[in-house]
Amino acid sequence: MRGNALPYDTIKYAVEDQVATITLNRPHRLNAFTYEMGDEIIAALDLADADDDVKAIIFTGESPAFCAGADLSTGAETFNMVAQARESGEFDETDPKWRDKGGLLNLRIWNTLKPVIGAINGAAVGIGATMILPMDIRLASMDAKFAYPFAKRGIVWDGCASWFLPRVVGISTAMDWGLTGRTFSAAEAFEAGLVARVVPAEDLMAEARERARMIAERCAPVSVAMMRRMAWRMQGAAHPMEAHRVESLGILHAGMGDDAKEGVMSFLEKRAPDFPMKVSSDLPPWHPWWDAAEDEYC
Amino acid sequence: MRGNALPYDTIKYAVEDQVATITLNRPHRLNAFTYEMGDEIIAALDLADADDDVKAIIFTGESPAFCAGADLSTGAETFNMVAQARESGEFDETDPKWRDKGGLLNLRIWNTLKPVIGAINGAAVGIGATMILPMDIRLASMDAKFAYPFAKRGIVWDGCASWFLPRVVGISTAMDWGLTGRTFSAAEAFEAGLVARVVPAEDLMAEARERARMIAERCAPVSVAMMRRMAWRMQGAAHPMEAHRVESLGILHAGMGDDAKEGVMSFLEKRAPDFPMKVSSDLPPWHPWWDAAEDEYC
Amino acid sequence: MRGNALPYDTIKYAVEDQVATITLNRPHRLNAFTYEMGDEIIAALDLADADDDVKAIIFTGESPAFCAGADLSTGAETFNMVAQARESGEFDETDPKWRDKGGLLNLRIWNTLKPVIGAINGAAVGIGATMILPMDIRLASMDAKFAYPFAKRGIVWDGCASWFLPRVVGISTAMDWGLTGRTFSAAEAFEAGLVARVVPAEDLMAEARERARMIAERCAPVSVAMMRRMAWRMQGAAHPMEAHRVESLGILHAGMGDDAKEGVMSFLEKRAPDFPMKVSSDLPPWHPWWDAAEDEYC
Repeated sequence: MRGNALPYDTIKYAVEDQVATITLNRPHRLNAFTYEMGDEIIAALDLADADDDVKAIIFTGESPAFCAGADLSTGAETFNMVAQARESGEFDETDPKWRDKGGLLNLRIWNTLKPVIGAINGAAVGIGATMILPMDIRLASMDAKFAYPFAKRGIVWDGCASWFLPRVVGISTAMDWGLTGRTFSAAEAFEAGLVARVVPAEDLMAEARERARMIAERCAPVSVAMMRRMAWRMQGAAHPMEAHRVESLGILHAGMGDDAKEGVMSFLEKRAPDFPMKVSSDLPPWHPWWDAAEDEYC
Repeated sequence: MRGNALPYDTIKYAVEDQVATITLNRPHRLNAFTYEMGDEIIAALDLADADDDVKAIIFTGESPAFCAGADLSTGAETFNMVAQARESGEFDETDPKWRDKGGLLNLRIWNTLKPVIGAINGAAVGIGATMILPMDIRLASMDAKFAYPFAKRGIVWDGCASWFLPRVVGISTAMDWGLTGRTFSAAEAFEAGLVARVVPAEDLMAEARERARMIAERCAPVSVAMMRRMAWRMQGAAHPMEAHRVESLGILHAGMGDDAKEGVMSFLEKRAPDFPMKVSSDLPPWHPWWDAAEDEYC
Repeated sequence: MRGNALPYDTIKYAVEDQVATITLNRPHRLNAFTYEMGDEIIAALDLADADDDVKAIIFTGESPAFCAGADLSTGAETFNMVAQARESGEFDETDPKWRDKGGLLNLRIWNTLKPVIGAINGAAVGIGATMILPMDIRLASMDAKFAYPFAKRGIVWDGCASWFLPRVVGISTAMDWGLTGRTFSAAEAFEAGLVARVVPAEDLMAEARERARMIAERCAPVSVAMMRRMAWRMQGAAHPMEAHRVESLGILHAGMGDDAKEGVMSFLEKRAPDFPMKVSSDLPPWHPWWDAAEDEYC
């Protein structure tokens, strides 16, 4: 196991059996989100993306909660970025680039090169419930509960949830949860498709590791990185022709590669694959072209 | 209760306990849709939007139907707008702006500033089944049944259903219902996600009022108006960055407001909130910018 | 029955009771996909589209499989289009128009003027599991199983699956199936909405024919062709106004037509309809405008 020595204050980061685990680690505050936590998660994702030994990433929270949302201990001005920034001297009110921290975090998770599995072990509220949306597979403990209480706090969606949540659970459920702000159970989250499976608390991490292992041991990392981003990107494409264009390039590139040879031969020889290509060096050169929209804003 | 004195011929409009109820009211014709009914619904929505005492809107039909669709009593020329308009002298065949009345109605419901709850008490057919799609929460009586019989009548989707229905129930169910035109039960509507809950007929309005009350008593009206439109708009956004841009502005604006202070303090003090901001005056100035697409066409 | 005399090597094509059936017919190779099969399917779809006596199309496979995916018998170079093309002399590596064969097939199915019903009678793997996505109604035998094993073979999505699959089953299930590459049962396919119904093997074709008959006997073919394309196209539209524009034109055109008269009159007279309009001649002139995106690429 590696990573334990890294100087994180609000999370833990560890790599074992080709899987990185990021654990939200402010249990005395139910893992309530802070800007520092956001920065540390992003640093951990950068580390995981750059490490070819990491084939998948698991997100969880230090018991008893997953993430209780924004830390409200600062009181009435909790969501007043302007007042906070004036105090710290860091905020320029006229700057058009002022950005939601939950959105910055979720765009980063969305752009991750490794598949992300959420293991939701307890309450996931507000930013704790939006943070899970750009993850690829979400599993919940029977102890988990969820809420998008923005309207009850007088604010609005964060973390690009207005884009992600309707895509994950459909517009009708998204509106129900968002407009009432009500708390709902792991069972309702499962029914709606927010989580793929609900398991007893003691089985949650084993279940998450099993899913990660399935990807790490059987699937080509370069294929996984490409497929993940292709499917997310095509959520917003107006026409299947856009997918056809990217997939045609993708199959041309991947089909010539050593991973495709190994994929077919390991199948024909009925053995486990040993894929030679690396995410750090073998993504196709045209891969970044679809990041133009981010550039436009940053 | 207010609103009963208003001069509507085809609907009833009443406000009670901060909730407006619009009741389709041509029970002798199973509440079949007419142009007059469309105009009256839009007038009622304008009233509800302008009234800060209205926190949510319930739609239902005077028993025994919800809305049986277009009134076919005019016979073979029912859907022939050109013949009808020539007769009335109002139609210019070359006018590129001729528009589907169901679409005009549904774009208006979609743009409503208050959450809309459909309480579907009986048959919802054709425009009666498309009218419910831009609503936020749909509940059905066990007596409800549904059909999109356009292909059986030799016409096509109305009410922007080609856009809404796949977003509400998925493309596969939308195709099944649309291409066969078959009638389906409230139970099938529930399974597919068209309605969030099916209840005995006698419980329908109480259930709808309970949902409306949950929003009216706990949620900030300005937050609800913003969140509703953000989630609907982001259904068509190509990239989560578009959500991030709008949410960043939204949180900046809302976070400085008195509703956010009240939202946090009422939570910390464990009491019901009393939000001071009003939809009529406190929506952010940039709110209308995303209406450009409508302007383009009107 | 017609069509059996046609010179297909890899499929069978037959028309009976207004329904065309395309049967993948390489049972000795579990109906594994070849370029020839792709070309023959497209030729059969051209035939079905041009034949006004065909009101619906059923796709199935010759027992025991539906389609086992790419034919891996060529070994390590299976997915290496460049090596294959150099050998055959047909490939120009610098040609930007090199295109995925699965995508070409699926864009053709997507553009079909008749509704397409998939009757999945056995294993549907890889391109065999992407080929079913642009179909309108999917039914499965209890013997069916499914997999999107691209990442296990070192390649990526084909058949525009990165666009289609999230729209059919939601982004979360699409990611689970795509990133793990795991095989799943007909029951799981049903739960996720990939298939509308699972039936005993011996009932599959009867069930598919019943769905086709429901459309063929009751629905106007021109309405079906228009509604099918409208709903698929609006999947990518940014705003319901785009649907409103097309639907307004569609209702104007259809409402003046003889099918609308027959649709209303057959309903009022409680008899089966006999729609006079034909897909080959009576689609509105503006129908092709929305194909611009294809032209751009071809």
